Amino acid sequence: MLEELKKRVYEANMLLPQYGLVTFTWGNVSEIDRETGYFAIKPSGVDYNKLSPEDMVIMDLQGNKIEGKYNPSSDTPTHIELYKNFAEIGGVVHTHSSWATSWAQAGRSIPCYGTTHADYIYGEVPCARCLTGEELKNYEANTGVLITEVFKDRDYKAVPAVLCKNHGPFTWGKDAFEAVHNSVVLEEVAKMAARSEMLNPGIKPAPQELQDKHYYRKHGANAYYGQ
Amino acid sequence: MLEELKKRVYEANMLLPQYGLVTFTWGNVSEIDRETGYFAIKPSGVDYNKLSPEDMVIMDLQGNKIEGKYNPSSDTPTHIELYKNFAEIGGVVHTHSSWATSWAQAGRSIPCYGTTHADYIYGEVPCARCLTGEELKNYEANTGVLITEVFKDRDYKAVPAVLCKNHGPFTWGKDAFEAVHNSVVLEEVAKMAARSEMLNPGIKPAPQELQDKHYYRKHGANAYYGQ
Amino acid sequence: MLEELKKRVYEANMLLPQYGLVTFTWGNVSEIDRETGYFAIKPSGVDYNKLSPEDMVIMDLQGNKIEGKYNPSSDTPTHIELYKNFAEIGGVVHTHSSWATSWAQAGRSIPCYGTTHADYIYGEVPCARCLTGEELKNYEANTGVLITEVFKDRDYKAVPAVLCKNHGPFTWGKDAFEAVHNSVVLEEVAKMAARSEMLNPGIKPAPQELQDKHYYRKHGANAYYGQ
Amino acid sequence: MLEELKKRVYEANMLLPQYGLVTFTWGNVSEIDRETGYFAIKPSGVDYNKLSPEDMVIMDLQGNKIEGKYNPSSDTPTHIELYKNFAEIGGVVHTHSSWATSWAQAGRSIPCYGTTHADYIYGEVPCARCLTGEELKNYEANTGVLITEVFKDRDYKAVPAVLCKNHGPFTWGKDAFEAVHNSVVLEEVAKMAARSEMLNPGIKPAPQELQDKHYYRKHGANAYYGQ
Repeated sequence: MLEELKKRVYEANMLLPQYGLVTFTWGNVSEIDRETGYFAIKPSGVDYNKLSPEDMVIMDLQGNKIEGKYNPSSDTPTHIELYKNFAEIGGVVHTHSSWATSWAQAGRSIPCYGTTHADYIYGEVPCARCLTGEELKNYEANTGVLITEVFKDRDYKAVPAVLCKNHGPFTWGKDAFEAVHNSVVLEEVAKMAARSEMLNPGIKPAPQELQDKHYYRKHGANAYYGQ
Repeated sequence: MLEELKKRVYEANMLLPQYGLVTFTWGNVSEIDRETGYFAIKPSGVDYNKLSPEDMVIMDLQGNKIEGKYNPSSDTPTHIELYKNFAEIGGVVHTHSSWATSWAQAGRSIPCYGTTHADYIYGEVPCARCLTGEELKNYEANTGVLITEVFKDRDYKAVPAVLCKNHGPFTWGKDAFEAVHNSVVLEEVAKMAARSEMLNPGIKPAPQELQDKHYYRKHGANAYYGQ
Repeated sequence: MLEELKKRVYEANMLLPQYGLVTFTWGNVSEIDRETGYFAIKPSGVDYNKLSPEDMVIMDLQGNKIEGKYNPSSDTPTHIELYKNFAEIGGVVHTHSSWATSWAQAGRSIPCYGTTHADYIYGEVPCARCLTGEELKNYEANTGVLITEVFKDRDYKAVPAVLCKNHGPFTWGKDAFEAVHNSVVLEEVAKMAARSEMLNPGIKPAPQELQDKHYYRKHGANAYYGQ
Repeated sequence: MLEELKKRVYEANMLLPQYGLVTFTWGNVSEIDRETGYFAIKPSGVDYNKLSPEDMVIMDLQGNKIEGKYNPSSDTPTHIELYKNFAEIGGVVHTHSSWATSWAQAGRSIPCYGTTHADYIYGEVPCARCLTGEELKNYEANTGVLITEVFKDRDYKAVPAVLCKNHGPFTWGKDAFEAVHNSVVLEEVAKMAARSEMLNPGIKPAPQELQDKHYYRKHGANAYYGQ
């Protein structure tokens, strides 16, 4: 069980450099087994090209290490908050991917300018504010608490991504692989949105009805994309 | 006959990731056999690295599936409209390639700023408006209808590309490979046009006589480029 | 003799896709043997991945084909003008490389913003005007004539590159390999100059004395860079 | 001893093209052995793909060549100044990497816009002024002297990078590999800072308390990132 979980999380982590989303160790993926409440996550600061499945760290949702010779990712408390608050997600990814991080550094939410975005994300990708000095004392956990707040009036399943101001993106999904998939989508969407604004400073979001058409072509009861 | 068509369409589809024009499954290529009226097209939402020639779907121009175990691309009705209205084309490509899609999201036609563009495309690459709410009910077919409208007073053979606002590009050609070739050209032209505007906000299109010189150096009775 | 020349020109041409300077067949390299006055050049419109050394075409400076089964590059008359007017060059390259072409489309000379530029090119890379309608009748030869005019009061050895407005760059050097080297330099310099302007709209060229220091560190009697 | 040093410096130099930080020979890495005061550095103007460990040049801090068949990098006097003035560094890197050089050409220090920057560099990356005509007479040594001046009131260990106006970046670290690591970080940070400004022209640096949190999460007595 845990071996299978560690293997999956290892493979999902290795997709990050393959998709060009991480430099050095700047990213981490986790996946949870909802029955036991255990999740596997990348160890902190270990090179991707030295990782193996058995290096993955098994944690519980109280932050206890269940298994593993390494320290877990320093972002582990953020993952825990997301798993606790977003009941139906199974995987979480954090990267410093270049375009998404540039939007985060600019402190801007990413508007939905086209169908590439609408196919995966319903409406803008929100940018969460910076934590206050007080909140920074418990930085990683409070990052997760703040993300939860941002989604109080949003559907985390329809918007599987967030930007943390002056920091970078988190994405999630039903498992680790879908969460990685959403990180790739987010980076591509962030790149094209920046270029679209450069080409048309007066640009407006795509019409809502076109966004709806594309989103519901791939999601929900009437979806007809795919097999 | 159909085996050969499926093999060609498979190979043309596989060029899209090779040229960096698609992420995941965001693109599709078809080619028609004008004698039978059958065309082969990529199945919907199947990973490029899992495709094989026999996965290609054979369709007729009434939208009936003639052969194939998969659903055809969800954009199939657009391909059908283009084949019905542009009598001399043999291949159609749709992608979300990054620079062309950025122009589409910006809602802008691509002016002809130089000979790279003029060598392949006579005049601007037009950007078609968004479909109305009513038109969206039959989204994919009406996308093709709208493209046809845009070309009412244009020569689809001299301008083998279009942008759909807030969506992305379609290209075509005498066969699937020429259509893919034109997608590569469009992406390169879209990239250089954006950078040219960044370098000179007051930029004007290339002189018409230079555009003519380059276009007719490669096309028509007096062409002298190539072998 | 000619076999060796063809082999060198073949190898120099194959460097263009390797350095990412060409898409499809959008580029050509030639090298001249000054003793015979013969030069070898890429055939017109032949794919790089199908080229072999024996496909190179041997021409003389009057435009006669001396040897070869293919038509020479359509830009051959431009190469001839450059060899006739720039007595000490041995190789010529034309590409549509993305950043240099974007400056050409913008109709702008590239200012010298730093030592990367000054190490190879003394002062700005000039942008030649478009040819007139009359001049376009003999397009390729007149392109070479115009470049020669632009260098009437410049040292073509100190500035081994030019942009042709709405078209793209030509570079040259003592042989085909140095000419290709200069094309790589030009593309890198064009990219960094564009980004430097984006970062500082009020940017000025590098101080003349710094340009002199770097240029003469690598060129002339007092050079001390290298072995 | 020297063989080990040469091998390390060779390997660190070979990382520069691997990380995409150099074109041709535009970069150099050195590492010092503080006990003997000898350092190994790349030879001047030798292609990366022709280098071998024995080609590295051994120098002392007075600028005498101790061992090696080649001339050392022309930037050697800059490396010497840095080793003499920054007592605790063990490696130095110079490149013309594209984004960092663009900031240098723009004459701008790189503000700290996010945690990617703050994880490695405490505060802005300073841009040193151009040398005066008089200073240019002893160009490479004075470049090092000027950098030292810029760090008179900065901690060179907390800010392991500098830009030289109209030239490019230098980075350093406890050894050659950490110095190369910092060059990679600098290039990524420079790229994302440029894009962040494009997305938000009114952008402000990241809050100081967030910068502190990230910097001290990885550095100093209370660091908890990594193993």
